[in-house]
Amino acid sequence: EAVARWREEGRVAVWLRVPILQSGFAAAAASQGFAFHHAEQGSSTLALWLGEGPSRLPGYASHQLGVAGAVLDESTGKVLVVQDRNRTINAWKFPGGLSNPGEDIGDTAVREVFEETGIKSEFKSILSIRQQHKHPGAFGKSDMYIICRLEPSSFTISFCQQECLRCEWMDLDELARTKHATPITSNVAKLLLYGYREGFEKIDITMREFPAVYTGLFYKLYHRELPESYRNIT
Amino acid sequence: EAVARWREEGRVAVWLRVPILQSGFAAAAASQGFAFHHAEQGSSTLALWLGEGPSRLPGYASHQLGVAGAVLDESTGKVLVVQDRNRTINAWKFPGGLSNPGEDIGDTAVREVFEETGIKSEFKSILSIRQQHKHPGAFGKSDMYIICRLEPSSFTISFCQQECLRCEWMDLDELARTKHATPITSNVAKLLLYGYREGFEKIDITMREFPAVYTGLFYKLYHRELPESYRNIT
Repeated sequence: EAVARWREEGRVAVWLRVPILQSGFAAAAASQGFAFHHAEQGSSTLALWLGEGPSRLPGYASHQLGVAGAVLDESTGKVLVVQDRNRTINAWKFPGGLSNPGEDIGDTAVREVFEETGIKSEFKSILSIRQQHKHPGAFGKSDMYIICRLEPSSFTISFCQQECLRCEWMDLDELARTKHATPITSNVAKLLLYGYREGFEKIDITMREFPAVYTGLFYKLYHRELPESYRNIT
Repeated sequence: EAVARWREEGRVAVWLRVPILQSGFAAAAASQGFAFHHAEQGSSTLALWLGEGPSRLPGYASHQLGVAGAVLDESTGKVLVVQDRNRTINAWKFPGGLSNPGEDIGDTAVREVFEETGIKSEFKSILSIRQQHKHPGAFGKSDMYIICRLEPSSFTISFCQQECLRCEWMDLDELARTKHATPITSNVAKLLLYGYREGFEKIDITMREFPAVYTGLFYKLYHRELPESYRNIT
């Protein structure tokens, strides 16, 4: 039957897309060795590896992306922090949340900060990146968690009562010292304090935009600031 | 029936896990408004949002993670580059590939460099991060692409003939100037040249390991080097 023919034809893999209302076909395909590769909304995609050795098919998306914003008011040295509602330990942290599909890192930070605290802000740099595997709440997948430095453009807090228990502008120095903060928050507070006192160029991972070769779209590249003299090497 | 009862009971969402061989149930559930949340191997997970307004259910993993390694031989100023096989344009780039599930960033870089080029190396830092949406080959999902700085511990190239057309140790200066490189490679070459000449502390995003509060596992946090005096603030 079909699978034997595909094998004879020398195919190394077969993909099968099944609309959710025809999911009975997925069961039939599974009995022939197909397995789910991924599924979303109204359809699933199955695959069968026919080549030699273990499957060399590419996996599906492996990470969720969370982004938080450390909004520092440079005129006062205060930083915007929240405490989550419904937690056993009331630790201070930076407001943030999961990226929407197709959303840029800085845009997630600005949006989440606004949704949680009512504060408007602008993206300045990436400060820190954490990778965690088998992340709870990520359906067994990995988590990438990025903290950005943001500059506030409004200052009156109006926080989301559903998500937050408390929200305030706290002295950066105090946040760096308090025991009532998650380790990642303490660490980034110390990093931010270092930058605030000795120059943000010490801590910033800055962003540059480039055109993508094939698609004509733009992508954003984050790295340490490159001096003009090195950028213009040709 | 069941959905009406769940709604009456005030449930805001219902999750349904369906083994692939019983996929007929997924079709039945879909006719009641369920949609796929995700699927992998032998089962699919469906969800139905019953709450008010648009669904507030968390999405599934949104990013794949690619990692490349810029292996710089500091004694010669040469960096390891490859050209992909089967490309219309023969551009120099750093060896790399997709992370395996659960694999740390630096481990992917070291593994991919070894698989493609035969060169053994050690993780030193992250140099650059790119985020790209609707990435080709990522099944419509986003791509996070990280380039690491690696230090070689072996020097004799034995490259993978299936993946690579060419592989060589190239003068960093030459790589920074050549037109036969992808924009991201050129840019990172310039960054690396800056670090090589003026100190890697100018370009490095370094790694520190921390224990996770809840799981007892360790996670890795990447940011600019924090001076001892700031780390020890309490």
